[in-house]
Amino acid sequence: MVVTVIGLGLIGGSLAISLKENGFAKTIIGIDHNPENVDKALRRRLIDETMELVEGIRLADLVIVAIPVDNIIPLLPKILDQVTHQVVIDVGSTKERILKSVTDHPRRNRFIGTHPMAGTEHSGPEAAIPNLFDGKACVLCEVEKTDPSAVELVEKMYRTMDMKILQMNPVEHDIHTAYVSHISHLSAFALALTVLEKEKNEARIFELASGGFSSTVRLAKSTPNMWVPIFSQNQENLLDVLDEHINTLAKFRTCLIKKDFTQIYELIEKANSIRKILK
Amino acid sequence: MVVTVIGLGLIGGSLAISLKENGFAKTIIGIDHNPENVDKALRRRLIDETMELVEGIRLADLVIVAIPVDNIIPLLPKILDQVTHQVVIDVGSTKERILKSVTDHPRRNRFIGTHPMAGTEHSGPEAAIPNLFDGKACVLCEVEKTDPSAVELVEKMYRTMDMKILQMNPVEHDIHTAYVSHISHLSAFALALTVLEKEKNEARIFELASGGFSSTVRLAKSTPNMWVPIFSQNQENLLDVLDEHINTLAKFRTCLIKKDFTQIYELIEKANSIRKILK
Repeated sequence: MVVTVIGLGLIGGSLAISLKENGFAKTIIGIDHNPENVDKALRRRLIDETMELVEGIRLADLVIVAIPVDNIIPLLPKILDQVTHQVVIDVGSTKERILKSVTDHPRRNRFIGTHPMAGTEHSGPEAAIPNLFDGKACVLCEVEKTDPSAVELVEKMYRTMDMKILQMNPVEHDIHTAYVSHISHLSAFALALTVLEKEKNEARIFELASGGFSSTVRLAKSTPNMWVPIFSQNQENLLDVLDEHINTLAKFRTCLIKKDFTQIYELIEKANSIRKILK
Repeated sequence: MVVTVIGLGLIGGSLAISLKENGFAKTIIGIDHNPENVDKALRRRLIDETMELVEGIRLADLVIVAIPVDNIIPLLPKILDQVTHQVVIDVGSTKERILKSVTDHPRRNRFIGTHPMAGTEHSGPEAAIPNLFDGKACVLCEVEKTDPSAVELVEKMYRTMDMKILQMNPVEHDIHTAYVSHISHLSAFALALTVLEKEKNEARIFELASGGFSSTVRLAKSTPNMWVPIFSQNQENLLDVLDEHINTLAKFRTCLIKKDFTQIYELIEKANSIRKILK
Protein backbone atom coordinates (compact mmCIF):
# COMPACT_ATOMS: atom_id res chain seq x y z
CA MET A 1 0.00 0.00 0.00
CA VAL A 2 1.36 3.41 -1.02
CA VAL A 3 0.17 6.22 1.24
CA THR A 4 0.66 9.83 0.21
CA VAL A 5 0.57 12.29 3.09
CA ILE A 6 -0.07 15.91 2.16
CA GLY A 7 0.98 18.17 5.02
CA LEU A 8 3.90 16.98 7.12
CA GLY A 9 3.08 18.56 10.46
CA LEU A 10 2.19 17.01 13.81
CA ILE A 11 -0.77 15.00 12.49
CA GLY A 12 0.52 14.09 9.02
CA GLY A 13 3.96 13.26 10.39
CA SER A 14 2.60 11.16 13.24
CA LEU A 15 0.31 9.24 10.86
CA ALA A 16 3.32 8.64 8.61
CA ILE A 17 5.28 7.18 11.52
CA SER A 18 2.46 4.90 12.71
CA LEU A 19 1.32 3.61 9.32
CA LYS A 20 4.86 2.75 8.25
CA GLU A 21 5.71 1.21 11.60
CA ASN A 22 2.65 -1.02 11.77
CA GLY A 23 3.08 -2.16 8.17
CA PHE A 24 -0.13 -0.68 6.78
CA ALA A 25 1.94 1.44 4.39
CA LYS A 26 4.77 -0.05 2.42
CA THR A 27 5.78 3.36 1.12
CA ILE A 28 4.99 6.83 2.47
CA ILE A 29 5.17 9.66 -0.05
CA GLY A 30 5.32 13.02 1.72
CA ILE A 31 4.26 16.34 0.24
CA ASP A 32 4.33 19.80 1.79
CA HIS A 33 4.25 23.27 0.24
CA ASN A 34 6.98 24.25 2.67
CA PRO A 35 10.32 22.80 1.44
CA GLU A 36 11.75 23.08 4.95
CA ASN A 37 9.07 20.71 6.26
CA VAL A 38 9.81 18.23 3.47
CA ASP A 39 13.49 18.43 4.29
CA LYS A 40 12.87 17.89 8.01
CA ALA A 41 10.48 15.00 7.29
CA LEU A 42 13.05 13.29 5.07
CA ARG A 43 15.83 13.79 7.60
CA ARG A 44 13.63 12.47 10.41
CA ARG A 45 12.68 9.56 8.10
CA LEU A 46 9.00 10.28 8.58
CA ILE A 47 8.56 9.70 4.84
CA ASP A 48 10.24 7.54 2.23
CA GLU A 49 10.24 10.08 -0.57
CA THR A 50 8.73 13.30 -1.84
CA MET A 51 7.43 14.34 -5.25
CA GLU A 52 5.09 16.77 -7.03
CA LEU A 53 1.45 16.68 -5.93
CA VAL A 54 0.07 15.22 -9.16
CA GLU A 55 2.64 12.45 -9.20
CA GLY A 56 2.16 11.77 -5.48
CA ILE A 57 -1.56 11.32 -6.02
CA ARG A 58 -1.09 9.19 -9.14
CA LEU A 59 1.13 6.68 -7.35
CA ALA A 60 -0.95 6.51 -4.16
CA ASP A 61 -3.49 3.97 -2.99
CA LEU A 62 -4.51 6.27 -0.16
CA VAL A 63 -4.11 10.06 0.04
CA ILE A 64 -4.21 11.70 3.47
CA VAL A 65 -4.78 15.46 3.54
CA ALA A 66 -3.32 16.79 6.79
CA ILE A 67 -3.14 20.55 6.33
CA PRO A 68 -4.90 23.41 8.18
CA VAL A 69 -8.66 23.31 7.61
CA ASP A 70 -8.77 26.55 5.60
CA ASN A 71 -6.28 25.15 3.10
CA ILE A 72 -8.20 21.88 2.75
CA ILE A 73 -11.20 23.58 1.15
CA PRO A 74 -9.49 24.89 -2.02
CA LEU A 75 -7.11 21.90 -2.33
CA LEU A 76 -9.49 19.00 -1.81
CA PRO A 77 -11.50 19.37 -5.08
CA LYS A 78 -8.22 19.67 -7.00
CA ILE A 79 -7.01 16.42 -5.46
CA LEU A 80 -10.26 14.65 -6.30
CA ASP A 81 -9.89 15.91 -9.89
CA GLN A 82 -6.80 13.69 -10.16
CA VAL A 83 -8.34 10.63 -8.57
CA THR A 84 -9.00 7.41 -10.46
CA HIS A 85 -8.78 4.41 -8.11
CA GLN A 86 -7.36 6.22 -5.05
CA VAL A 87 -9.07 6.77 -1.72
CA VAL A 88 -8.74 10.28 -0.26
CA ILE A 89 -9.30 11.37 3.34
CA ASP A 90 -8.82 14.61 5.20
CA VAL A 91 -8.02 14.69 8.92
CA GLY A 92 -9.22 18.22 9.75
CA SER A 93 -10.79 19.23 13.06
CA THR A 94 -13.90 20.70 11.40
CA LYS A 95 -16.09 18.79 9.01
CA GLU A 96 -19.15 20.70 7.81
CA ARG A 97 -17.51 23.16 5.40
CA ILE A 98 -14.92 20.70 4.21
CA LEU A 99 -17.56 18.15 3.24
CA LYS A 100 -19.63 20.86 1.57
CA SER A 101 -16.65 21.80 -0.60
CA VAL A 102 -16.77 18.45 -2.40
CA THR A 103 -20.42 17.50 -2.04
CA ASP A 104 -21.06 17.67 -5.79
CA HIS A 105 -17.67 16.51 -6.94
CA PRO A 106 -17.89 13.60 -9.45
CA ARG A 107 -15.33 11.65 -7.39
CA ARG A 108 -17.06 12.36 -4.05
CA ASN A 109 -17.43 8.58 -3.71
CA ARG A 110 -13.63 8.20 -3.29
CA PHE A 111 -13.47 10.61 -0.35
CA ILE A 112 -14.16 10.37 3.40
CA GLY A 113 -14.01 13.26 5.84
CA THR A 114 -12.34 11.98 9.02
CA HIS A 115 -11.19 13.42 12.31
CA PRO A 116 -8.72 11.37 14.32
CA MET A 117 -9.06 13.10 17.69
CA ALA A 118 -5.51 13.29 18.93
CA GLY A 119 -2.90 15.97 19.09
CA THR A 120 -0.44 17.86 21.21
CA GLU A 121 0.32 21.55 21.66
CA HIS A 122 3.33 21.23 19.34
CA SER A 123 3.44 21.54 15.57
CA GLY A 124 5.57 20.82 12.53
CA PRO A 125 7.41 17.67 11.42
CA GLU A 126 9.57 17.90 14.55
CA ALA A 127 6.43 17.43 16.66
CA ALA A 128 5.47 14.14 15.00
CA ILE A 129 5.49 11.25 17.48
CA PRO A 130 4.78 7.52 17.43
CA ASN A 131 1.60 6.17 19.04
CA LEU A 132 -0.17 9.55 19.01
CA PHE A 133 -3.42 7.96 17.87
CA ASP A 134 -3.39 4.74 19.89
CA GLY A 135 -6.74 4.10 21.51
CA LYS A 136 -8.15 7.55 20.63
CA ALA A 137 -11.50 8.32 18.96
CA CYS A 138 -11.79 8.86 15.22
CA VAL A 139 -14.92 10.33 13.64
CA LEU A 140 -15.92 9.43 10.08
CA CYS A 141 -18.53 11.63 8.42
CA GLU A 142 -21.08 10.88 5.70
CA VAL A 143 -19.68 7.45 4.88
CA GLU A 144 -22.90 6.69 3.02
CA LYS A 145 -21.62 8.96 0.23
CA THR A 146 -18.43 6.93 -0.15
CA ASP A 147 -17.78 3.62 -1.92
CA PRO A 148 -18.06 0.83 0.69
CA SER A 149 -14.64 -0.54 -0.28
CA ALA A 150 -13.10 2.90 0.39
CA VAL A 151 -14.80 3.08 3.79
CA GLU A 152 -13.51 -0.39 4.57
CA LEU A 153 -9.94 0.61 3.70
CA VAL A 154 -10.03 3.75 5.86
CA GLU A 155 -11.58 1.92 8.81
CA LYS A 156 -8.92 -0.75 8.45
CA MET A 157 -6.22 1.92 8.46
CA TYR A 158 -7.48 3.60 11.63
CA ARG A 159 -7.91 0.20 13.29
CA THR A 160 -4.21 -0.57 12.75
CA MET A 161 -3.64 2.25 15.24
CA ASP A 162 -6.30 0.87 17.57
CA MET A 163 -8.53 3.91 17.07
CA LYS A 164 -12.18 3.79 18.13
CA ILE A 165 -14.22 4.60 15.06
CA LEU A 166 -17.44 6.62 15.38
CA GLN A 167 -19.79 7.79 12.68
CA MET A 168 -21.44 11.17 12.84
CA ASN A 169 -22.92 13.71 10.49
CA PRO A 170 -20.69 16.76 9.94
CA VAL A 171 -23.04 19.21 11.64
CA GLU A 172 -23.20 17.05 14.75
CA HIS A 173 -19.40 16.58 14.62
CA ASP A 174 -18.75 20.32 14.61
CA ILE A 175 -21.09 20.92 17.54
CA HIS A 176 -19.56 18.17 19.68
CA THR A 177 -15.97 19.21 18.92
CA ALA A 178 -16.79 22.83 19.79
CA TYR A 179 -17.83 21.51 23.21
CA VAL A 180 -15.07 19.03 23.95
CA SER A 181 -12.12 20.40 22.04
CA HIS A 182 -12.34 23.90 20.57
CA ILE A 183 -13.54 25.63 23.75
CA SER A 184 -10.71 23.99 25.75
CA HIS A 185 -8.21 25.58 23.41
CA LEU A 186 -9.89 28.98 23.48
CA SER A 187 -10.06 28.82 27.27
CA ALA A 188 -6.36 27.92 27.50
CA PHE A 189 -5.36 30.78 25.19
CA ALA A 190 -7.41 33.20 27.30
CA LEU A 191 -5.99 31.87 30.56
CA ALA A 192 -2.42 32.27 29.32
CA LEU A 193 -3.16 35.85 28.23
CA THR A 194 -4.80 36.58 31.58
CA VAL A 195 -1.85 35.34 33.56
CA LEU A 196 0.67 37.08 31.28
CA GLU A 197 -1.32 40.30 31.71
CA LYS A 198 -1.67 40.10 35.50
CA GLU A 199 1.63 38.53 36.40
CA LYS A 200 4.13 41.03 35.07
CA ASN A 201 6.88 39.17 36.89
CA GLU A 202 7.49 36.32 34.45
CA ALA A 203 10.13 34.78 36.69
CA ARG A 204 7.41 34.27 39.30
CA ILE A 205 5.25 32.35 36.83
CA PHE A 206 8.21 30.19 36.02
CA GLU A 207 9.06 29.57 39.67
CA LEU A 208 5.55 29.01 40.93
CA ALA A 209 3.76 27.35 38.05
CA SER A 210 2.65 24.02 39.42
CA GLY A 211 1.51 20.96 37.54
CA GLY A 212 -2.04 22.26 37.73
CA PHE A 213 -1.24 25.51 35.97
CA SER A 214 0.90 23.81 33.35
CA SER A 215 -1.75 21.27 32.45
CA THR A 216 -4.48 23.91 32.25
CA VAL A 217 -2.54 26.26 29.97
CA ARG A 218 -0.60 23.62 28.04
CA LEU A 219 -2.89 24.01 25.02
CA ALA A 220 -2.10 27.74 24.92
CA LYS A 221 1.16 26.79 23.24
CA SER A 222 -0.79 25.60 20.17
CA THR A 223 -0.13 27.37 16.89
CA PRO A 224 -2.59 29.94 15.49
CA ASN A 225 -1.88 28.54 12.01
CA MET A 226 -3.91 25.50 12.93
CA TRP A 227 -6.42 27.00 15.36
CA VAL A 228 -7.52 30.24 13.70
CA PRO A 229 -8.90 28.32 10.68
CA ILE A 230 -10.69 25.90 13.04
CA PHE A 231 -12.23 28.76 15.04
CA SER A 232 -13.20 30.44 11.79
CA GLN A 233 -14.91 27.37 10.35
CA ASN A 234 -16.65 26.54 13.61
CA GLN A 235 -17.41 30.14 14.56
CA GLU A 236 -21.10 29.74 15.37
CA ASN A 237 -20.81 26.64 17.55
CA LEU A 238 -17.77 28.05 19.29
CA LEU A 239 -19.51 31.34 20.00
CA ASP A 240 -22.44 29.45 21.45
CA VAL A 241 -20.32 27.47 23.89
CA LEU A 242 -18.13 30.51 24.65
CA ASP A 243 -21.24 32.45 25.70
CA GLU A 244 -22.14 29.65 28.07
CA HIS A 245 -18.58 29.59 29.43
CA ILE A 246 -18.52 33.35 30.06
CA ASN A 247 -21.92 33.02 31.81
CA THR A 248 -20.55 30.27 34.04
CA LEU A 249 -17.52 32.35 34.97
CA ALA A 250 -19.83 35.30 35.64
CA LYS A 251 -21.78 33.07 38.06
CA PHE A 252 -18.56 32.38 39.99
CA ARG A 253 -17.79 36.11 39.88
CA THR A 254 -21.17 37.04 41.37
CA CYS A 255 -20.73 34.44 44.11
CA LEU A 256 -17.25 35.76 44.92
CA ILE A 257 -18.52 39.35 45.11
CA LYS A 258 -21.41 38.29 47.35
CA LYS A 259 -19.10 35.93 49.27
CA ASP A 260 -21.67 33.24 48.64
CA PHE A 261 -19.34 30.30 49.22
CA THR A 262 -22.24 27.87 49.71
CA GLN A 263 -23.19 28.42 46.09
CA ILE A 264 -19.55 28.11 44.99
CA TYR A 265 -19.39 24.80 46.87
CA GLU A 266 -22.43 23.61 44.94
CA LEU A 267 -20.98 24.73 41.61
CA ILE A 268 -17.73 22.88 42.29
CA GLU A 269 -19.60 19.75 43.38
CA LYS A 270 -21.51 19.87 40.11
CA ALA A 271 -18.26 20.37 38.16
CA ASN A 272 -16.84 17.33 39.98
CA SER A 273 -19.33 15.14 38.13
CA ILE A 274 -16.94 15.36 35.18
CA ARG A 275 -15.12 12.62 37.15
CA LYS A 276 -17.77 10.14 36.08
CA ILE A 277 -17.07 10.90 32.44
CA LEU A 278 -13.32 11.41 32.31
CA LYS A 279 -11.07 8.70 33.60
CA MET B 1 13.22 13.00 64.16
CA VAL B 2 9.55 12.54 65.07
CA VAL B 3 7.20 14.24 62.62
CA THR B 4 3.54 14.66 63.48
CA VAL B 5 1.30 15.18 60.49
CA ILE B 6 -2.11 16.71 61.22
CA GLY B 7 -4.44 16.06 58.30
CA LEU B 8 -3.91 12.83 56.37
CA GLY B 9 -5.12 13.85 52.93
CA LEU B 10 -3.28 14.16 49.62
CA ILE B 11 -0.68 16.63 50.92
CA GLY B 12 -0.23 15.37 54.48
CA GLY B 13 -0.19 11.75 53.30
CA SER B 14 2.29 12.43 50.51
CA LEU B 15 4.60 14.31 52.88
CA ALA B 16 4.39 11.36 55.29
CA ILE B 17 5.44 8.98 52.52
CA SER B 18 8.37 11.11 51.35
CA LEU B 19 9.76 12.09 54.74
CA LYS B 20 9.71 8.52 55.99
CA GLU B 21 11.13 7.14 52.76
CA ASN B 22 14.04 9.58 52.59
CA GLY B 23 14.91 9.08 56.25
CA PHE B 24 14.17 12.62 57.43
CA ALA B 25 11.53 11.24 59.80
CA LYS B 26 12.25 8.25 61.96
CA THR B 27 8.63 8.16 63.10
CA ILE B 28 5.51 9.66 61.56
CA ILE B 29 2.63 10.27 63.94
CA GLY B 30 -0.59 10.82 62.02
CA ILE B 31 -3.63 12.71 63.28
CA ASP B 32 -6.95 13.37 61.56
CA HIS B 33 -10.35 14.35 62.95
CA ASN B 34 -11.87 11.80 60.58
CA PRO B 35 -11.31 8.28 62.02
CA GLU B 36 -11.76 6.78 58.56
CA ASN B 37 -8.79 8.77 57.26
CA VAL B 38 -6.66 7.60 60.19
CA ASP B 39 -7.70 4.05 59.52
CA LYS B 40 -6.87 4.30 55.82
CA ALA B 41 -3.53 6.00 56.59
CA LEU B 42 -2.59 3.21 58.99
CA ARG B 43 -3.63 0.50 56.56
CA ARG B 44 -1.72 2.18 53.72
CA ARG B 45 1.25 2.54 56.15
CA LEU B 46 1.44 6.25 55.46
CA ILE B 47 1.97 6.73 59.20
CA ASP B 48 3.56 4.71 61.99
CA GLU B 49 0.99 5.47 64.65
CA THR B 50 -1.82 7.76 65.71
CA MET B 51 -2.65 9.46 69.01
CA GLU B 52 -4.50 12.38 70.56
CA LEU B 53 -3.54 15.83 69.30
CA VAL B 54 -1.90 17.00 72.55
CA GLU B 55 0.19 13.85 72.84
CA GLY B 56 1.09 13.97 69.15
CA ILE B 57 2.38 17.50 69.54
CA ARG B 58 4.23 16.71 72.78
CA LEU B 59 6.20 13.86 71.19
CA ALA B 60 6.96 15.69 67.94
CA ASP B 61 10.08 17.48 66.81
CA LEU B 62 8.21 18.87 63.82
CA VAL B 63 4.44 19.35 63.46
CA ILE B 64 3.00 19.66 59.94
CA VAL B 65 -0.52 21.09 59.65
CA ALA B 66 -2.02 19.83 56.41
CA ILE B 67 -5.73 20.55 56.69
CA PRO B 68 -8.02 22.84 54.65
CA VAL B 69 -7.06 26.50 55.07
CA ASP B 70 -10.26 27.47 56.91
CA ASN B 71 -9.56 24.85 59.56
CA ILE B 72 -5.96 25.95 60.00
CA ILE B 73 -6.94 29.36 61.38
CA PRO B 74 -8.75 28.16 64.55
CA LEU B 75 -6.43 25.18 65.11
CA LEU B 76 -3.03 26.79 64.64
CA PRO B 77 -3.03 28.99 67.78
CA LYS B 78 -4.17 25.96 69.82
CA ILE B 79 -1.25 23.96 68.50
CA LEU B 80 1.21 26.75 69.28
CA ASP B 81 -0.23 26.87 72.83
CA GLN B 82 1.18 23.36 73.33
CA VAL B 83 4.57 24.05 71.83
CA THR B 84 7.78 24.05 73.85
CA HIS B 85 10.72 23.00 71.67
CA GLN B 86 8.73 21.87 68.57
CA VAL B 87 8.75 23.48 65.15
CA VAL B 88 5.32 23.92 63.53
CA ILE B 89 4.52 24.53 59.88
CA ASP B 90 1.34 24.73 57.88
CA VAL B 91 1.22 23.77 54.20
CA GLY B 92 -1.89 25.73 53.16
CA SER B 93 -2.38 27.32 49.73
CA THR B 94 -3.13 30.76 51.18
CA LYS B 95 -0.84 32.57 53.57
CA GLU B 96 -2.02 36.04 54.57
CA ARG B 97 -4.89 35.17 56.91
CA ILE B 98 -3.15 32.11 58.31
CA LEU B 99 -0.10 34.14 59.30
CA LYS B 100 -2.29 36.88 60.75
CA SER B 101 -3.99 34.32 62.99
CA VAL B 102 -0.78 33.74 64.93
CA THR B 103 1.02 37.04 64.48
CA ASP B 104 0.88 37.91 68.20
CA HIS B 105 1.16 34.40 69.54
CA PRO B 106 3.93 34.07 72.17
CA ARG B 107 5.29 31.00 70.32
CA ARG B 108 5.14 32.67 66.87
CA ASN B 109 8.91 32.11 66.68
CA ARG B 110 8.40 28.34 66.47
CA PHE B 111 6.12 28.59 63.41
CA ILE B 112 6.66 29.01 59.66
CA GLY B 113 3.91 29.42 57.09
CA THR B 114 4.87 27.34 54.06
CA HIS B 115 3.33 26.38 50.76
CA PRO B 116 4.80 23.39 48.94
CA MET B 117 3.33 23.94 45.48
CA ALA B 118 2.35 20.50 44.38
CA GLY B 119 -0.86 18.57 44.21
CA THR B 120 -3.20 16.54 42.09
CA GLU B 121 -6.94 16.64 41.49
CA HIS B 122 -7.44 13.75 43.93
CA SER B 123 -7.91 13.92 47.69
CA GLY B 124 -7.82 11.86 50.86
CA PRO B 125 -5.25 9.37 52.20
CA GLU B 126 -5.87 7.17 49.15
CA ALA B 127 -4.58 10.01 46.93
CA ALA B 128 -1.21 10.25 48.72
CA ILE B 129 1.67 9.42 46.39
CA PRO B 130 5.46 9.23 46.59
CA ASN B 131 7.59 11.92 44.91
CA LEU B 132 4.72 14.42 44.70
CA PHE B 133 6.99 17.27 45.79
CA ASP B 134 10.19 16.37 43.93
CA GLY B 135 11.67 19.40 42.21
CA LYS B 136 8.63 21.61 42.86
CA ALA B 137 8.60 25.12 44.35
CA CYS B 138 8.01 25.74 48.05
CA VAL B 139 7.26 29.20 49.41
CA LEU B 140 8.24 30.15 52.98
CA CYS B 141 6.65 33.28 54.42
CA GLU B 142 7.88 35.73 57.07
CA VAL B 143 10.84 33.60 58.09
CA GLU B 144 12.28 36.66 59.86
CA LYS B 145 9.68 36.09 62.59
CA THR B 146 10.88 32.52 63.20
CA ASP B 147 13.87 31.23 65.15
CA PRO B 148 16.74 30.69 62.66
CA SER B 149 17.21 27.10 63.84
CA ALA B 150 13.54 26.37 63.08
CA VAL B 151 13.90 27.90 59.60
CA GLU B 152 16.98 25.79 59.06
CA LEU B 153 15.14 22.60 60.02
CA VAL B 154 12.21 23.31 57.72
CA GLU B 155 14.45 24.24 54.79
CA LYS B 156 16.40 21.05 55.38
CA MET B 157 13.17 19.05 55.37
CA TYR B 158 11.96 20.51 52.06
CA ARG B 159 15.41 20.04 50.54
CA THR B 160 15.27 16.29 51.30
CA MET B 161 12.49 16.27 48.70
CA ASP B 162 14.55 18.40 46.32
CA MET B 163 12.11 21.31 46.58
CA LYS B 164 13.12 24.78 45.36
CA ILE B 165 12.71 27.10 48.31
CA LEU B 166 11.52 30.69 47.75
CA GLN B 167 10.84 33.38 50.30
CA MET B 168 7.95 35.77 49.90
CA ASN B 169 5.76 37.92 52.08
CA PRO B 170 2.25 36.50 52.56
CA VAL B 171 0.48 39.28 50.65
CA GLU B 172 2.73 38.77 47.66
CA HIS B 173 2.29 34.98 47.95
CA ASP B 174 -1.49 35.21 47.81
CA ILE B 175 -1.42 37.50 44.76
CA HIS B 176 0.97 35.25 42.83
CA THR B 177 -0.91 32.04 43.67
CA ALA B 178 -4.21 33.64 42.60
CA TYR B 179 -2.53 34.17 39.20
CA VAL B 180 -0.76 30.88 38.69
CA SER B 181 -2.85 28.42 40.66
CA HIS B 182 -6.25 29.52 41.93
CA ILE B 183 -7.55 30.94 38.62
CA SER B 184 -6.53 27.71 36.83
CA HIS B 185 -8.76 25.78 39.18
CA LEU B 186 -11.66 28.19 38.88
CA SER B 187 -11.32 28.14 35.10
CA ALA B 188 -11.32 24.33 35.05
CA PHE B 189 -14.42 24.14 37.26
CA ALA B 190 -16.20 26.60 34.95
CA LEU B 191 -15.11 24.75 31.83
CA ALA B 192 -16.39 21.44 33.18
CA LEU B 193 -19.74 23.06 34.06
CA THR B 194 -19.93 24.65 30.60
CA VAL B 195 -19.36 21.39 28.81
CA LEU B 196 -21.72 19.47 31.09
CA GLU B 197 -24.36 22.13 30.44
CA LYS B 198 -23.92 22.25 26.66
CA GLU B 199 -23.18 18.62 25.96
CA LYS B 200 -26.23 16.85 27.27
CA ASN B 201 -25.02 13.66 25.65
CA GLU B 202 -22.47 12.51 28.25
CA ALA B 203 -21.52 9.49 26.18
CA ARG B 204 -20.29 11.88 23.51
CA ILE B 205 -17.99 13.66 25.98
CA PHE B 206 -16.63 10.30 27.00
CA GLU B 207 -16.08 9.16 23.44
CA LEU B 208 -14.67 12.37 22.06
CA ALA B 209 -12.74 13.84 24.95
CA SER B 210 -9.20 14.07 23.70
CA GLY B 211 -6.04 14.56 25.69
CA GLY B 212 -6.46 18.31 25.31
CA PHE B 213 -9.87 18.38 26.93
CA SER B 214 -8.81 16.02 29.71
CA SER B 215 -5.77 18.05 30.64
CA THR B 216 -7.70 21.33 30.59
CA VAL B 217 -10.50 20.12 32.83
CA ARG B 218 -8.47 17.71 34.96
CA LEU B 219 -8.44 20.17 37.86
CA ALA B 220 -12.25 20.28 37.79
CA LYS B 221 -12.16 16.98 39.66
CA SER B 222 -10.66 18.75 42.70
CA THR B 223 -12.64 18.69 45.92
CA PRO B 224 -14.63 21.74 47.08
CA ASN B 225 -13.58 20.91 50.66
CA MET B 226 -10.10 22.13 49.82
CA TRP B 227 -10.87 24.78 47.22
CA VAL B 228 -13.82 26.69 48.67
CA PRO B 229 -11.76 27.74 51.72
CA ILE B 230 -8.90 28.79 49.41
CA PHE B 231 -11.22 30.84 47.21
CA SER B 232 -12.75 32.34 50.34
CA GLN B 233 -9.42 33.36 51.86
CA ASN B 234 -8.07 34.69 48.58
CA GLN B 235 -11.35 36.21 47.42
CA GLU B 236 -10.06 39.67 46.48
CA ASN B 237 -7.05 38.56 44.47
CA LEU B 238 -9.06 35.84 42.78
CA LEU B 239 -11.82 38.28 41.86
CA ASP B 240 -9.24 40.60 40.38
CA VAL B 241 -7.71 37.96 38.13
CA LEU B 242 -11.15 36.50 37.30
CA ASP B 243 -12.27 39.92 36.04
CA GLU B 244 -9.24 40.03 33.77
CA HIS B 245 -9.98 36.49 32.56
CA ILE B 246 -13.61 37.28 31.73
CA ASN B 247 -12.42 40.41 29.88
CA THR B 248 -9.99 38.34 27.84
CA LEU B 249 -12.69 35.82 26.93
CA ALA B 250 -14.97 38.72 26.03
CA LYS B 251 -12.26 39.97 23.65
CA PHE B 252 -12.28 36.60 21.89
CA ARG B 253 -16.07 36.73 21.84
CA THR B 254 -16.13 40.15 20.17
CA CYS B 255 -13.60 38.98 17.58
CA LEU B 256 -15.68 35.88 16.85
CA ILE B 257 -18.83 37.94 16.42
CA LYS B 258 -17.03 40.38 14.13
CA LYS B 259 -15.23 37.50 12.42
CA ASP B 260 -12.02 39.39 13.08
CA PHE B 261 -9.70 36.41 12.74
CA THR B 262 -6.64 38.62 12.27
CA GLN B 263 -7.08 39.85 15.82
CA ILE B 264 -7.69 36.29 17.07
CA TYR B 265 -4.44 35.29 15.36
CA GLU B 266 -2.63 38.06 17.23
CA LEU B 267 -4.20 37.07 20.56
CA ILE B 268 -3.15 33.44 20.10
CA GLU B 269 0.37 34.47 19.09
CA LYS B 270 0.58 36.53 22.28
CA ALA B 271 -0.76 33.58 24.32
CA ASN B 272 1.92 31.40 22.72
CA SER B 273 4.57 33.40 24.57
CA ILE B 274 3.69 31.26 27.60
CA ARG B 275 6.00 28.76 25.85
CA LYS B 276 8.98 30.83 26.95
CA ILE B 277 7.93 30.48 30.56
CA LEU B 278 6.54 26.97 30.82
CA LYS B 279 8.72 24.10 29.78
